[in-house]
Amino acid sequence: MDKRRLEKQINFLAEIDKMKSVYRQTLLMDRSRRETDAEHSWHLAMMAMTLLEYRQDPSADLLRVLRMVLVHDLVEIYAGDTFAYDPEGNKTKEKREKEAADRLFAILPEEQGAEYRALWEEFDRQETPDARFAVAMDRLQPFLSNYMTQGHTWKLGHVTEDQVRGRVGMIREAVPEIWPWVEEMLAECVQKGWLIPASRDPQHP
Amino acid sequence: MDKRRLEKQINFLAEIDKMKSVYRQTLLMDRSRRETDAEHSWHLAMMAMTLLEYRQDPSADLLRVLRMVLVHDLVEIYAGDTFAYDPEGNKTKEKREKEAADRLFAILPEEQGAEYRALWEEFDRQETPDARFAVAMDRLQPFLSNYMTQGHTWKLGHVTEDQVRGRVGMIREAVPEIWPWVEEMLAECVQKGWLIPASRDPQHP
Repeated sequence: MDKRRLEKQINFLAEIDKMKSVYRQTLLMDRSRRETDAEHSWHLAMMAMTLLEYRQDPSADLLRVLRMVLVHDLVEIYAGDTFAYDPEGNKTKEKREKEAADRLFAILPEEQGAEYRALWEEFDRQETPDARFAVAMDRLQPFLSNYMTQGHTWKLGHVTEDQVRGRVGMIREAVPEIWPWVEEMLAECVQKGWLIPASRDPQHP
Repeated sequence: MDKRRLEKQINFLAEIDKMKSVYRQTLLMDRSRRETDAEHSWHLAMMAMTLLEYRQDPSADLLRVLRMVLVHDLVEIYAGDTFAYDPEGNKTKEKREKEAADRLFAILPEEQGAEYRALWEEFDRQETPDARFAVAMDRLQPFLSNYMTQGHTWKLGHVTEDQVRGRVGMIREAVPEIWPWVEEMLAECVQKGWLIPASRDPQHP
């Protein structure tokens, strides 16, 4: 038993409590407050478990997907949450998150830190079947929340249908059976005025 | 593609957003507010991933453990969180949670609802290696939070060292290599006055 190893792991598990204080733009569906990264990560894990049967590539492995969604936002503890539709924030996102990863994963025993970092990088690259299914859940979850809160964060960011299509479009390939449902919801959101239709984008009229 | 099946799953995934509004007694480590069931469940999953190597029974399977900790508190959406050291609340807990399970898992397609319910029941019975490791994480997480917040919920509930030993004692068998660390923390908590020592229990002086 390596006492120093356990101490590092416990220090890491205490440090990541901060995921409960990183607030995203997304509202809870009861509108009581914004959701935290910890809550978002749990919700993705539940979505992955529940919707696994619809993955396009049957080789996507639930255990790896769960591990990936559980760690995918950890770097935001130091880098902060970057709103998907914030062009300025997204310019510096990569650098901020890399620095955060260097700092956070170094708390763990070396090989375990490297393992978590690799999962996060795999998620970000969206190349493997596991990562593509995990990212699809990460696109679906805020979409569902926006639907349930009448487009709350879309309205905040003056977001257009085209922008949302750009975000959620990858679901069409990663989880094709769900895509018709996404299309239906999108049409409803535009029709109800929760989302600016492509043709009425104020930036490009 | 069974559209009604997907609708049930999406309805369930929207319903469980309520886990983000079930507040536990445990404070966030930064003391900003109480943690939610969704945050707690995510934290358990991270603990299980990180501390898996210490499980007593090597047959404990991480995928089943993760699925179990992710769903283990879902019934609290309707049954509410029952504080571990509340004798009155614990008298009615079982009945309240069974009714909640009947209601919640019925939202899902039948076999998927039955699967989640079985995971929750297995967790509660604490008989399998998976469940014993999952429950150990569920005992360790609030213990670590209490340590980091100077015994916040212990003080609220006038909790004694004996009561905490009763809660965390199962860790000694399920994750024996971690037990010496628990003992050390317990001694420190008593010494610092965050926890009433067994001999000074005001109920049984």
